[in-house]
Amino acid sequence: MNEKRHLWLPFLKSDLPENLTTPAQTARAELEQAGIAAKLNLVTDMGESWSVSKDGSEITGGETGVLYGAYRLMMARAAGEALPTGVQTPRYPLRMINCWDNADGDVERGYSGRSLFFEGGKFDYDPARMRQLGRLLASVGINVLCINNVNVRDPAHRLIEDWLPELAKLADIFRAFGVRLMVSIDYAQPIRHGIPTADPLDERVAQWWIEQTKKVYAAVPDLAGYLVKADSESRPGPFTYGRNHAEGANMLARALAPHGGVLVWRCFVYNCQQDWRDAKTDRPMAAYQHYAYLDGQFDKNVILQVKNGPYDFQVREPVSPTLLAMPKTTLAIEFQLAQEYTGHQIDIYAMPPMWREVYADMGADRVQAIAAVSNLGRDGNYTGHPFAAVNLFAYGLFAWNPDETPEHMIALWCRLTYPDMDAASRETLVGLLMNSRAVYEKYTAPLGLCWMVARGVHYGPGPDDYEYDRWGTYHRADRDAVGIDRTANGTGYVLQYPPELRARYETPESCPDELKLFFHRLRYDYVMADGRTLIQRIYDDHFEGYEQAKAMKATLENLPLPSRDREEALERMDRQIKNAREWCDIVNAFFHRFSGAEDAHGRTLY
Amino acid sequence: MNEKRHLWLPFLKSDLPENLTTPAQTARAELEQAGIAAKLNLVTDMGESWSVSKDGSEITGGETGVLYGAYRLMMARAAGEALPTGVQTPRYPLRMINCWDNADGDVERGYSGRSLFFEGGKFDYDPARMRQLGRLLASVGINVLCINNVNVRDPAHRLIEDWLPELAKLADIFRAFGVRLMVSIDYAQPIRHGIPTADPLDERVAQWWIEQTKKVYAAVPDLAGYLVKADSESRPGPFTYGRNHAEGANMLARALAPHGGVLVWRCFVYNCQQDWRDAKTDRPMAAYQHYAYLDGQFDKNVILQVKNGPYDFQVREPVSPTLLAMPKTTLAIEFQLAQEYTGHQIDIYAMPPMWREVYADMGADRVQAIAAVSNLGRDGNYTGHPFAAVNLFAYGLFAWNPDETPEHMIALWCRLTYPDMDAASRETLVGLLMNSRAVYEKYTAPLGLCWMVARGVHYGPGPDDYEYDRWGTYHRADRDAVGIDRTANGTGYVLQYPPELRARYETPESCPDELKLFFHRLRYDYVMADGRTLIQRIYDDHFEGYEQAKAMKATLENLPLPSRDREEALERMDRQIKNAREWCDIVNAFFHRFSGAEDAHGRTLY
Repeated sequence: MNEKRHLWLPFLKSDLPENLTTPAQTARAELEQAGIAAKLNLVTDMGESWSVSKDGSEITGGETGVLYGAYRLMMARAAGEALPTGVQTPRYPLRMINCWDNADGDVERGYSGRSLFFEGGKFDYDPARMRQLGRLLASVGINVLCINNVNVRDPAHRLIEDWLPELAKLADIFRAFGVRLMVSIDYAQPIRHGIPTADPLDERVAQWWIEQTKKVYAAVPDLAGYLVKADSESRPGPFTYGRNHAEGANMLARALAPHGGVLVWRCFVYNCQQDWRDAKTDRPMAAYQHYAYLDGQFDKNVILQVKNGPYDFQVREPVSPTLLAMPKTTLAIEFQLAQEYTGHQIDIYAMPPMWREVYADMGADRVQAIAAVSNLGRDGNYTGHPFAAVNLFAYGLFAWNPDETPEHMIALWCRLTYPDMDAASRETLVGLLMNSRAVYEKYTAPLGLCWMVARGVHYGPGPDDYEYDRWGTYHRADRDAVGIDRTANGTGYVLQYPPELRARYETPESCPDELKLFFHRLRYDYVMADGRTLIQRIYDDHFEGYEQAKAMKATLENLPLPSRDREEALERMDRQIKNAREWCDIVNAFFHRFSGAEDAHGRTLY
Repeated sequence: MNEKRHLWLPFLKSDLPENLTTPAQTARAELEQAGIAAKLNLVTDMGESWSVSKDGSEITGGETGVLYGAYRLMMARAAGEALPTGVQTPRYPLRMINCWDNADGDVERGYSGRSLFFEGGKFDYDPARMRQLGRLLASVGINVLCINNVNVRDPAHRLIEDWLPELAKLADIFRAFGVRLMVSIDYAQPIRHGIPTADPLDERVAQWWIEQTKKVYAAVPDLAGYLVKADSESRPGPFTYGRNHAEGANMLARALAPHGGVLVWRCFVYNCQQDWRDAKTDRPMAAYQHYAYLDGQFDKNVILQVKNGPYDFQVREPVSPTLLAMPKTTLAIEFQLAQEYTGHQIDIYAMPPMWREVYADMGADRVQAIAAVSNLGRDGNYTGHPFAAVNLFAYGLFAWNPDETPEHMIALWCRLTYPDMDAASRETLVGLLMNSRAVYEKYTAPLGLCWMVARGVHYGPGPDDYEYDRWGTYHRADRDAVGIDRTANGTGYVLQYPPELRARYETPESCPDELKLFFHRLRYDYVMADGRTLIQRIYDDHFEGYEQAKAMKATLENLPLPSRDREEALERMDRQIKNAREWCDIVNAFFHRFSGAEDAHGRTLY
């Protein structure tokens, strides 16, 4: 916990002083420590924007802008990169990290140790480490940190009650880094205070939130706002009272509006008590059904936060149609840096190529904010796997400018994190990371099928683990075919898309291979574009994925990594290979037993 | 916890005094309270045996015998039964209950509340409730109570160390009921005391046990002995040191011998890290492989405790071949009253018919002792489901005399437990209980297949939950067939049986239907004796089982049960029906998807 690692900022020499209160002060302190004699021109109106003179001698920007400029100047120098010219402005004003930290110190879906902020039912953190985290976040332009789990459990509701003085103290630390705090709230919180309902149209409820929010902003005047998960996975919400989600969100937003706060409302709403026998209800359709018709009905300071795909952070999903259906609503796209379904920060999985694909289908301007579930924890290296930090780093850059290429973001991370590594090795590492998602995808669930993961833990294979369960995530494999028909002839999910994407997905022939089993039910003998049958493609992908995982180890062993990172990475690599082997053999056995098809290359099927 | 229920002893009027120290005193106190003026003739040499004069005016027996005689006299009178004539002697000298209670108060596989003995890492019990339990146990002749889990976790090892004074206090309570305590020990316990090994042939290890056991018997002179789970499911054991289990058990037995204690050694040893790809290793063969060759090598005071079947308390297993293979060894058969795989004391499951079948194949004289995993807990009614008490009751009677019929034991329990119930209703209840295992068997895993249960929790269906796991429990279902060939052509498991049973099991035709899939791999179109195909039989059984569960509810609703029992039983009945429906539909869907076979009666398959 007290280990000092600067991750992609290894050029930092020492801790920052405790008495910094503004980002501009921090900028000065950092530049001084780095021995860079740049002049800061503070232009308050510029806000987060910044520019650096060609020779790097002047940084011009708003209060936060100069800090961002300073970090980018330092990073450009460390990486030997040219500085960008002209005024740099973030694409989105809110670039958020959502921590799923519980007050008891546990992190929901956390794979890098205990909570950074809490332990034993109360605040418990190392202020020096908070400042270190502030540096990391500010260096890549992340400006909102939601510190507690969206599943708010006792006593986390106290964050906006008697824990406000402590919340204010933490906010003081991050303020110097341009990072505003956010808190997840319990939608039913008024009920804890003698109000017999949480009906958003009940005056007592609205009034409670108005009064309570006044107290919150008296303590933390620049709080970014509230994050809410309502009517989702057994959380309370407006549906309990026969209200829609606009009514629920607007009520809260109106309590925040006078203080400049936003209300971030997660659109992760679906029936989590589905009967597996029910083939009509199709979970990926749920968010669109619950929200699209409400477009235009949300207050200005409401942000609907929508997961990138319609399911739940699977390795491969099409873009969520909800993101394409609400032009009159402020939307945030939500990614998950925590590798819940993507290897638990044991398996290597660099996400930028996936974000890129989503954006290619969505367009950056469909959303007005961006959020990501944190992969941070109390581990010395913050992210469990030393390479998992690349996702936090790149997320910040991508949130600032979604036109950043995956190659550049990953290469920059490598160069900054391992400044002593030779260029050839660095290129190898970049290649390994760039390809890591493709490898993981191959040895896990095939061709967009999703959810073949071990129940509950979500690491390792469990082809049938969700098949007869209540989560609405079925593949319905049988002896002839696999997948759900989501065309107009099936559940109709494809109709939620605008014409171009609809046309792409609506026939097996037009649908790209990697999503074929997301949209279509196909026979095992279905012939893919390259002439292979579906079943042979499943076998081939899995065998290839496993082979590639093994090859990654050989690559890793030859990389000149610092010894600590090397140990951590190799120890995890062995677990990844074991995982890849299990996935490969089990998924192949699963389909072999159904289909009876032998492998064309005579490899062993169990 | 303080609720007073007398279960099958409702005729008891009040608590017993605290100052009773011998079973004979208890016998007098009970008779007095019951207003029965019977004379007690104490004949010390008779030990546990007893006889009652025809008119019930005299009970003759040993110290414990008179207590047993007194209870049987009271129960016979309450039930309106004739008294047995002649001297009654138990078939087995040790009639044991194994509690899987942990020091933290949790009960492993416990479905009736917290531990009776422990809470929060220490002893914590209500002495009055202990006396009540003593009455229940003594009334059915159970004479050994092992109070802690065979998986001994810190701090339970302290039971034979600094907790000895408290162990002695508890022993004092039960002594008045003829119940001797036993404790589960940690095979590696000497390692906690500076000895660098637990090698049974190391003199320091043997000496440590000798010394420690002296201290134990100084505190509890009539302790029954130690119970050990070694080299099993990650417990330490002799294999760690290259020794066999005779060497391990004898070392401990020699520490106990001078004090008259026995060493009960559980034979639940198998490879719990099996690779699911490995089709050669066959878990049911493990106990025989580990123990049969050691027959004759165990000391006289060693008891090998062998589960009734070769797997692990599944609904239907053949008798364990180990029980038939060790004539020169003292054996105990182990049943499980806790309904781990048989409905968690939610579903109704009366076990006597199953014991009867096992004994029919084994013969009562193959074993010299009997044990059962407890179904007891801190719940008001001790066993969660009020009907689950029938298993504890009947177990005691069966352990005393395995010739008792299931019908009689169950009918007697009904009559004693519900003395006010009319004869017709009682007959209905007896029928419901007698048939309950058959119903449960039908809606769960078919035809001896086993292990289609939800992973970990062991309640509800999970057809593939253990299929790709490390526990050695595979069905290997595919599109054509299901089951493991355990004949001489397959794993050879059937060869572990003596000729008669071998002949019965070795061909699909000779093998009884209910075990066909335990011994054979069969195609779905295999034609059973009654002309139905295997797949149709699977469908039929499951649909019937579900229908029968629903019918049980109707029966239950019409029974004139006391209101508390009625509420508890009906609340559980609804859960049982839900469970039966899930089992039925999921197992049928599972096989339908593999086989493609439609139901001959057109019922819905998913």
